[in-house]
Parts: sequence; C-alpha cells; structure tokens
Amino acid sequence: MSRDIRALTFDVFGTVVDWRAGVAREVGTILAAKGHVLDWFAFADDWRARYQPAMEQVRSGWRGWANLDTLHRENLVELLREKGVAGLGAQDIDDLSHAWHRLDPWPDSVAGLVRLQRRYILATCSNGNVALLVNMARRAALPWDAVLGAEVAGAYKPLARAYDRTAELLGLAPAECMMVAAHPNDLTAAAARGFLTAYVHRPQEFGGGTDQPWPDPGSFDIQVADFLELADALGA
Amino acid sequence: MSRDIRALTFDVFGTVVDWRAGVAREVGTILAAKGHVLDWFAFADDWRARYQPAMEQVRSGWRGWANLDTLHRENLVELLREKGVAGLGAQDIDDLSHAWHRLDPWPDSVAGLVRLQRRYILATCSNGNVALLVNMARRAALPWDAVLGAEVAGAYKPLARAYDRTAELLGLAPAECMMVAAHPNDLTAAAARGFLTAYVHRPQEFGGGTDQPWPDPGSFDIQVADFLELADALGA
Repeated sequence: MSRDIRALTFDVFGTVVDWRAGVAREVGTILAAKGHVLDWFAFADDWRARYQPAMEQVRSGWRGWANLDTLHRENLVELLREKGVAGLGAQDIDDLSHAWHRLDPWPDSVAGLVRLQRRYILATCSNGNVALLVNMARRAALPWDAVLGAEVAGAYKPLARAYDRTAELLGLAPAECMMVAAHPNDLTAAAARGFLTAYVHRPQEFGGGTDQPWPDPGSFDIQVADFLELADALGA
Repeated sequence: MSRDIRALTFDVFGTVVDWRAGVAREVGTILAAKGHVLDWFAFADDWRARYQPAMEQVRSGWRGWANLDTLHRENLVELLREKGVAGLGAQDIDDLSHAWHRLDPWPDSVAGLVRLQRRYILATCSNGNVALLVNMARRAALPWDAVLGAEVAGAYKPLARAYDRTAELLGLAPAECMMVAAHPNDLTAAAARGFLTAYVHRPQEFGGGTDQPWPDPGSFDIQVADFLELADALGA
C-alpha cells in the first residue's frame, strides 16, 4: 500500500492541532485582561459548536463562498453577544477571531510530520482558509509542502470537490493520496473519492473524559494513536 | 516601507531557479541516453519560446483553463516532432515534460529565502502549477509558506486576477505584499494591482551574453542583484 502513496493530506483542527486548549488560552488571555471572567473551555466549545452549521449554509448553497476566518468572526460576534461580553472594538474582534491562527500542535505532530515529509508530500486538506493555515504553520513549525483544501477548492469538506481538487492540484490520482484525520466522517468522505485513509486517535480533542471509541478494526487503511505511529506504519 | 510588508510573492522561473540550464541538463540526459544529439540549450530556448503563446491562448479565453504541465507537454510534443526526435513513449514524454519540476535554484536563492522567511511570509506567485512548484520545492529545498499563483487563481500572470487572488488567499491587502521578479513586465502588472515591487537582476537567465539592462533607477521599490541583497534591503 505505502509504495503507491505519494502524498498525505491532513485534516488540521483536532488532528494536527489542539483547537480547544488553544482557543481557550488565546480568548481567555485577551478577555481576562479586559476584566471578563468566563469558562474559557466552554467558550471554545460553544464557538466550535457553531462551526458546522455555518459551513452548512455555504455547502448547501444557501449563501455564497465565505472562508473560515469570515465564519469564525461572525460566530464570535454572536457568541460574545450571547455571553454578554460588550465594549470590544473591531480590532479586538479581529484579534480574538484569529485565535484559530495561534493553535498549538499535539505533542507528536511536528516530530511525526518531519519524519513523514522525507518520504511523502505533505499537504493540508482542511476547512481552514489559506491565511489561517499559513499563519498557524509559521508559528507552530508545521512543514507543509502545500496549503490546500476548502478555500482553494471553493468547497467545504465533506463535499467531494474538496478532496478531488486537493488531489488534482497535487497532480496525483486520488489513490496516490492518503487522507489523515481524527474524524471518521472526514475519512469516509475521502475514501468515497478514492483516497486511502489513516485514522489518528485524538482522545483529548474535546477535553478529558469525552473520548470517543476507536473505529472498528479495518474501518480505515491505517488506525494509529499518533503521528509517530503513522510514520512507523508508513515506513517513514 | 518594509514595516508594512507582510508577504513576499515570488516569480519562480528565471527569478528563483535557472530554468535554461536545468531543462538543458534534464532533457539532454534523457535524450542523449536514447542516442539523440542536439544543442540542448537551444532546445530549452525553443521550448521556452512556446510558453507565452500557449498561455496567451488561455489568457485570451480562446481555450479553457490548462495548467502549465499540460502546456509544457503539448509544446514538447510539437518541438520533438519539429526536431525529428521520434520513438518516445508516453512515459518518456511525461518524464521529459517534468524536467521543469527538476530545476536548480540560483546559488543565492535558498540562502536568501531562508533569511527572508524569518520575517516575511513567502509565497509563490508563479505561472507554474501547484504540483510542479511543490515537486521543485521539495527537490531544491525552497521554503515556501504557500504555493499560490496562476493555477489556484485560474488566471495566468500578468492578468490582474493572478495577483489579486494571491493577496486575497494570504488574507492581505495588496500593499502588504511585495512581488519579487526578474521580469519588469511582471512587476509592472503587480504594481498596477497595488503590490510593492522588488526587481532582481538575473543576467544568466537566457545564457551568457544576453544580459538585459537594469531598469532605470526608481522603476521599482527595490532593485537588487540577488536574494541576499534583497534580504539586506528588507532587514531580514
């Protein structure tokens, strides 16, 4: 199998980086300095809960293309109003909204990616927009060969075009690409477009005590606990 | 000026890499092994001469989008016929066509880019397609933060959309971007879209003895002899 793989395409939020701790830290730091006291992990969860419904408006065609920075900002404005956080200027809102650019990788992510990059092309196949992913990669030293996914495809995962266009831009057949994600629905959608699939278990994505079960054995081509195991499995 | 710049966007062929020597080497190696004897530099020049007319068919709308690998391959097939080189299979043609993925950087390119990357986002703004630029970057250690330009914009330079979309995908205003190129027409087109401009003099692009004059002083925001001087000029 691994002989035919040319590129690994990565989901990012939850798979490569810990969005929940990062958003809680960034928002907490900024808003606490302005005198606000909230449960910042709950704030991160509430913000993230608005993510799929906002993308669904775009996927369904109800609204035209809007990138993830735009959706994050709109959702943030609503959430701040709901939480009674007032008195922020446009620059403050931008800065909060860009918390998603400043997320830390899981402890194994960078070491695993560096090993994998020796043998495979590494590309994002994320719903994050290019600027978000570029800023994140520079801060966190994520060694992407290409930043691809929803924005350059003009379609959010799990729509077929997000995967198809990622393979096409890499000049590869889908069967030469392996999608890497912590989310079974993302992998199932990629497999339906001909990608190979690697599931990475990220039990802390939604915080302690929320661990989801592993997929049944054989659900995906590879099922591993972290990126170092993925590198082992792929001979990198 | 440099305080406001967030990203440098690079022309690649001729500016970052020496396409002429690379194409001559790659094609010469492959075809000489099959018993063909030609002037390989002239072959590279003839191939390159078909580049603008082929892109112009796309720019003008006469034909739909075709990426540079496709145009290079079509032009190669014509050129081989013209030169009387016969007996090649589809795999040989692909391999020759991908000579453009295997070009070497100018001697200062990597060292300059590494310095510039500490301070600025580095993106391609090239007419090369994503796969070509990714393969080139992996082979030549070009540290792009993002591989952008014609293919993701769906428009070849010097059309406005190639520049506009590059800035947009970086989440930046054009005035926060500096176009870096060895070709005045590319810089003039970028400036018309609001980019800052850096001219890099590459006297060997078309071989010895073909050096073009430097632009008049003040034609562009920066005019330098190589990427190390560019890093000096930009405080990187």
